[in-house]
This record gives sequence, C-alpha cells and structure tokens, in this order.
Amino acid sequence: MYVDLGNVLGTTPGVSKEALERLDGRVADAHERIEQGRADSEHGYAALNLPETTDPDEIRNAVSRFEDPEAVLTVGIGGSALGAATISEALDSDVDAYYLDNVDPEWVSGLLDDLPLDDTVVNVVSRSGTTAETLANFLVVREAMDSAGVDWTERTFVTTGEEGNLRDLADKHDLPALPVPDGVPGRFSALSTVGLAVAAIQGHDLDALLAGAADEADRLSGSLFESPAYAYGATTYALDRRGASINAMMPYAESLEYFAEWFAQLWAESLGKDGVGQTPARALGATDQHSQLQLYRAGPRDKLVTLVRPREKQDTQIPETDLDGLSYLGGSSLGDLLDAEFEATEASLAAADCPNIRVEIDRVDERGLGELLYGMEAACVLYGELDTVSTFTQPAVEWGKKAARGLLGGGDFEEADAVSDKVRLEVE
Amino acid sequence: MYVDLGNVLGTTPGVSKEALERLDGRVADAHERIEQGRADSEHGYAALNLPETTDPDEIRNAVSRFEDPEAVLTVGIGGSALGAATISEALDSDVDAYYLDNVDPEWVSGLLDDLPLDDTVVNVVSRSGTTAETLANFLVVREAMDSAGVDWTERTFVTTGEEGNLRDLADKHDLPALPVPDGVPGRFSALSTVGLAVAAIQGHDLDALLAGAADEADRLSGSLFESPAYAYGATTYALDRRGASINAMMPYAESLEYFAEWFAQLWAESLGKDGVGQTPARALGATDQHSQLQLYRAGPRDKLVTLVRPREKQDTQIPETDLDGLSYLGGSSLGDLLDAEFEATEASLAAADCPNIRVEIDRVDERGLGELLYGMEAACVLYGELDTVSTFTQPAVEWGKKAARGLLGGGDFEEADAVSDKVRLEVE
Repeated sequence: MYVDLGNVLGTTPGVSKEALERLDGRVADAHERIEQGRADSEHGYAALNLPETTDPDEIRNAVSRFEDPEAVLTVGIGGSALGAATISEALDSDVDAYYLDNVDPEWVSGLLDDLPLDDTVVNVVSRSGTTAETLANFLVVREAMDSAGVDWTERTFVTTGEEGNLRDLADKHDLPALPVPDGVPGRFSALSTVGLAVAAIQGHDLDALLAGAADEADRLSGSLFESPAYAYGATTYALDRRGASINAMMPYAESLEYFAEWFAQLWAESLGKDGVGQTPARALGATDQHSQLQLYRAGPRDKLVTLVRPREKQDTQIPETDLDGLSYLGGSSLGDLLDAEFEATEASLAAADCPNIRVEIDRVDERGLGELLYGMEAACVLYGELDTVSTFTQPAVEWGKKAARGLLGGGDFEEADAVSDKVRLEVE
Repeated sequence: MYVDLGNVLGTTPGVSKEALERLDGRVADAHERIEQGRADSEHGYAALNLPETTDPDEIRNAVSRFEDPEAVLTVGIGGSALGAATISEALDSDVDAYYLDNVDPEWVSGLLDDLPLDDTVVNVVSRSGTTAETLANFLVVREAMDSAGVDWTERTFVTTGEEGNLRDLADKHDLPALPVPDGVPGRFSALSTVGLAVAAIQGHDLDALLAGAADEADRLSGSLFESPAYAYGATTYALDRRGASINAMMPYAESLEYFAEWFAQLWAESLGKDGVGQTPARALGATDQHSQLQLYRAGPRDKLVTLVRPREKQDTQIPETDLDGLSYLGGSSLGDLLDAEFEATEASLAAADCPNIRVEIDRVDERGLGELLYGMEAACVLYGELDTVSTFTQPAVEWGKKAARGLLGGGDFEEADAVSDKVRLEVE
C-alpha cells in the first residue's frame, strides 16, 4: 500500500508537516501499545496477528468436500459478510458468491428462487450462533433446500464460536465447522476463517492474501513516515481533530466498490463512540464525480476525500471517432480516461482547498487486497489509540437488538416498551 | 408519501414544533416562489412539472421497435443513469437492466463479455452529446457489437438534447431519439424521458409512476404541516442549521438501495455550494445496523437518520425451530423481523437523542416510487429555497472536467497544468 499525504498540507482543514512530526511521538507510543497488545493476543489487537495465525490449510481442508460448486451463499450480517464480500467482489471467479446479509423478505425469496440450490454451498456465519437476522435467514434457506429436495447437510458449513447453536448443529449433522478466531471482532475478521472460506471455495490464493497482509504488517513501525498504514491512520485522525469530520472513501475501481462498504463498517463501528469518530461516506470514482464532487469541492469544509486506485489494470482501447469534438478520446484507453479523471479530481479537490489522500496498491489481486485490508485495519487501530476510544467494542448497538427481540416476543425488555411510546408528528 | 417528524422534537440536534411553526412562514414564501417558477417553466423548477409534461406515449412509441429484449444497457453517468437505475432496481422485470456509468476498463469489458449483445438494447444518454465517459463507453460498446456481428443501428436509441453529436448520430442512422426535456437538470430527470425509457422497455407502468408523482405534486402547499415533501425539506434544513450536517438515508428494503444513491446525488449536487449543504450518507436497513448504527448512536451529534420503508410487502414465514434461544423467531416472518428492526432502530436512535425522520410509502411499486422520487425532489427544491442556494447548478465540477480533458490532449487548459504541480508526501 502506498500513501501520499501531499494534498493535506495547507488545505482547509489541513495539517502541516510540522504538526505531523509533532504527532509522530504519539504514534511511537501508540505503536508500542499495539505491539504489546499483539504480543499478548489481547482482544482486538489479536486481529493484527491474523497474517501469521490464520492457517490457510485449515480453511481449504474444511471446504474441500465442496468441489467446484456453481455458487456459494454466505448467510451472515455485518462483519460476518463484509470481509468475504469485499474479496469476492474484487476478484474474478467461476464460482458465484452471494450474501444473505439482510432480512428483506422479497429480496430473500427472490434470491433463493434464482439460486441453483442443488449446486450451491451454504456458509452460515455467526460467532454467537444467535444473530437473529442470520439464524432467521438460515432457517428459510434450509427449508428452501428441503423443499427443492436438496440435502442441506451435504451442502452447508458453519463458521462460528466454540459453543452455541451453530456448533451444536454442526456436531449433530457432521457439517464442516470453521472456528471464528478468539479476540477478533467481526469487522477485523476479513483475513481469518470468516473472510477467507468463500475465497477458498472461489479458488483464490489465500497464501497471497495473507502474504500481502504480512508485508503491510512488516511495515508497521514507530513512525507514521515509515508505515503507510500509520500514515493513513494518523493523518485521518489529525484531520478529524481539525474539522474533517467526514471521510469520503472513493476507490477508482468498480472491483473495490465493496471495499468502501467494508471500510465504512471498520471506521464507523470502531471509532464512533464517546461523541467522537469520523463519519465514513462511501463513494465511487469516476461515477460520483457526477454526484458528490460538487458538494466535496463547494460544500462545508468538513471533509477529507480518500482516493484509492490500483497502479496497474487490464485496459480497453477507445476506438477512433470522427464525432465532433471527441477525436481526443480516440487513441486513448478507458484506463487513460479513468486515470485522468482520478488525477483531475485529486487536483480539483486540492484547488478547492479540500484535503485528500491518495492510497494505491499495485493491482487488485490477492496480494494487493491483503495489503489494503490489513493496512486499513492497522490505520483504524492506530486512530483509535490516538483518540483514546475503545476501538474493538460496539456497545451502542445492543439497545436496538433488545428492543427488536422484545417486539418479536423473545423476552421482556424495557427497550421494547419505548418503541410503543414513540412521539408522532405525521404529515400525509 | 408519509412523513413522521415526531423523532426530531427535542433530540440533539433537534427542532421544536414551535420552531417549525415559525419556519412555516418562510415555507409559504418559498412555495410561492416555486409555484411561480413552475408556472414560468423556469430552469430547474420545470422539473416539478414533469408529472404533467412527460408524455408516456412518446416514450413507449420511441422504444416500441425493441420488442421484448433480453437486456437493456444504458450508457450514461450521474443523472443520466441514476433515475432509471433507481426505478429498474426497485421493480421486477423479465428484461434485465444494466448501466455503464463508469469507465473502469476491467469492469466495462467484463460486462460486455457477459451481455447477450444480439438481444440487448442500448440506450445512450447525454444531454450535450459530449460527456467524455459516456461517449467513450458508447464507442467501446459500438465496436463490441460490430465485432460480434450485431448491427448496432438496429439496437440503439439515444436520449439527448436538440443538437449535438448524439442527435446527429441518430439522424444519420435513423435511430429513435428521445429529447431531454428543457429546464430539467439531470438529477431531477427521473420522471422524464431520461428515467422512463428503460422502465418502458422493462414493461413498467409509466402512467402509474407519473400518477404517483402527480399525487405528491398535488399535496404541495404553503405549509410544511400539509405537504409531506415540504415537511421533509423544511425539517432537514432546520436540522442542518442546528448541527445535523449529515443526513443518513437508510431505506429498509433492498429494492430501494439504489434510491439512496439517487437521493445522495440529488441532495449533494443541489445543496452543496457556497460552503453549505447537508452531506448525504447512503445506508441500508437492517444491514447497516451492524455497520453504521454504533456511530449514529454514539458518535458526534452531527447526524440525522432518515428511515424509509414500504408499509406493505410480500412476506416470507420463518420456519419453527428448536434451536436454543431462537424459538421466538418461529411463527414470525422475515417481514415481522424487518419491521421490528426498523422500529427498534428508530426508537434506539431517539433514545440516544439522535434525530430521525420516518418516511413511508404504501408499497414499492410504480405509484409508490413516483411519490417518493417526486417528494424528495420537491423537498430538495424547498430546502434550496430556504438556504438561498442555486439549487439547479453544479459549477464546482467544471474544473475537473477541464483538467481531465487537458490531460488527454483535448485542448489547452490551465487546470491540467495544476495536476503535474501536485505536492507529494509519500509513505511506502
């Protein structure tokens, strides 16, 4: 991963080289704390050890009984789906990957109608084995397979904790069961069994994914000027403190559209607490130049834009044309056009005084993805240290879970009572 | 469209009923200005007349030569694609709709490889006929059809202005050509030829779409308490002024995921200028409860969440289960679960003092979509009036267009020179 901070120096908000140098002492302290956490396999910090602790053979063996299926369907939500989806959306495969990460009934039944259930592998992911959305969807999927005359026990595996419903189910029906690693929150689990089982089924190179991540881990150091991941984490933190409360993540590659979703969870759930936290906004280049750029350049001075691109890609030539005023396109390629738009947008943000950071990888391949995912995780952990928040927890989501459970008759919860007390001011 | 403002009263930030009543005088003035603009068919305001001025027969006739194709491919970007995509993603059809709205070469060639080019209709959309991304992609598509032995002139239509490249091309090859209506910026064109031609090919009911929009237009009035669209526009404006600089648009329906994209363009490009403008953040319920909710509840007090749902939907029963602790799910449906999550999230935001607005339509069908799209457009126009911005322009995107064109050798532009002057601070 390559990070270029040039366009945050002197923008509004912005941060000076001198300020980054002053911050670097705190980066050294934070790095020491992080390294200690990694050495002790502390909760959360253990995620940064995944390049070493994940065993790709264990994953490949667990799914080896599913030979060359037409599709793989992951039933999971949040961190149980986003890491795997980021990898499968980024890389080509003959095995199609689908994700049941919502409980919209029309969408669920539409997807099940379209899937070749007799040639689909089902991957149920929930650490606790009790996530309501995931288990409800699994029950629906299982029934659909039964109805289609498909033996679901032959086509299902689970990724779950040491105990619980899904573990019991696996034992009872002799399903392959991958463990969710200890100490790794869902949003940091892309490089574990949670994110890599689908990649294995799709035939991707797990070793290269982990090697890319290990390379990025090797670059962690006590100075933000020596580690791309820390350069990104420290600078985004410094910019937030100076008013860039929004971080627009804007990859210039369709294959990285899901990466922006993954990043949004990582950033929001890890850093959004105690009244602080930078808000991630998902964008996509070049498309969103025609949607969000007006706001980024001319709106409030509360934004940082992160521009991500691969340095190399397969290209497509634009045919020559005699269309009026468009001859300049002929002889160029779509890749040239996309690169020109990337650099033009970057410069146009700088010209409008809007801070922006360039993040690059060599290619959108296993190695590049490993670097990018690990790099952003380490950046997030550093940011959390600098902002003294509890990076690895998400206490604010519990309230709604209890309320929903109460509403469905799953127990007495005072939160459910609050729902019926809703204040109304209706306009129809 | 139904709007419930109850959960913005007394939150932080929040707005009181009394403040809304005080604002209502300005809503009346703004309504008068808007009605005058509509009566004069002024630039931008003319968009709010589309339910009357769009002729569905003209659209149906233009595409009538394409009988029951397998797919329709729209080549367009920004407002030339998002309206049509919002409708086609929301409604089921046997005709698949695709959108080439980016110039990523790997993605473009991948999509063209997968498309049945001999049974695909191509819809090229650009008002000026010179949009670089759209024309470059069209040249690539045309060549791909030639290479596949498909006569592109038999399968292509254009949606464009009265003059320009695409109009000339249509004249030369006798292609159907739909006019982009005068005075309607791209992001307000969903209910015109630009948004409805694909819907016609997909067999959707254009009359119902326009009737839904007309219903919403009929509800515009001099008081925010009488018009759902103005209730939404006035309240989001008042909340922004009180610190809710981010508006998270969170539909609880997979079919409305694209609607959030469309809304993000409408809001960002219309209102983001002069240093003001609320930043739209795209979200999706229930999925993003496991991604963004932690931040919304516990992060900075700078957010409003808009929760959107259809009141009715096709449902799917959750099978009974003896899985430990999950028996409460059996007997419920996925729709019950989704509704419980919606209401739980709404209440959990209120309990955390985070303002939220409920927006509902009866169903995700043509009529409901017409209401929703028109309602949000009118809300945006009202917001723009209240904030005294130039709602219908997007001047800040020109800089980057010139720079990109200069980089590709399409003329001398000083903006292109700025690109090579980039300041660098690289960490590798």
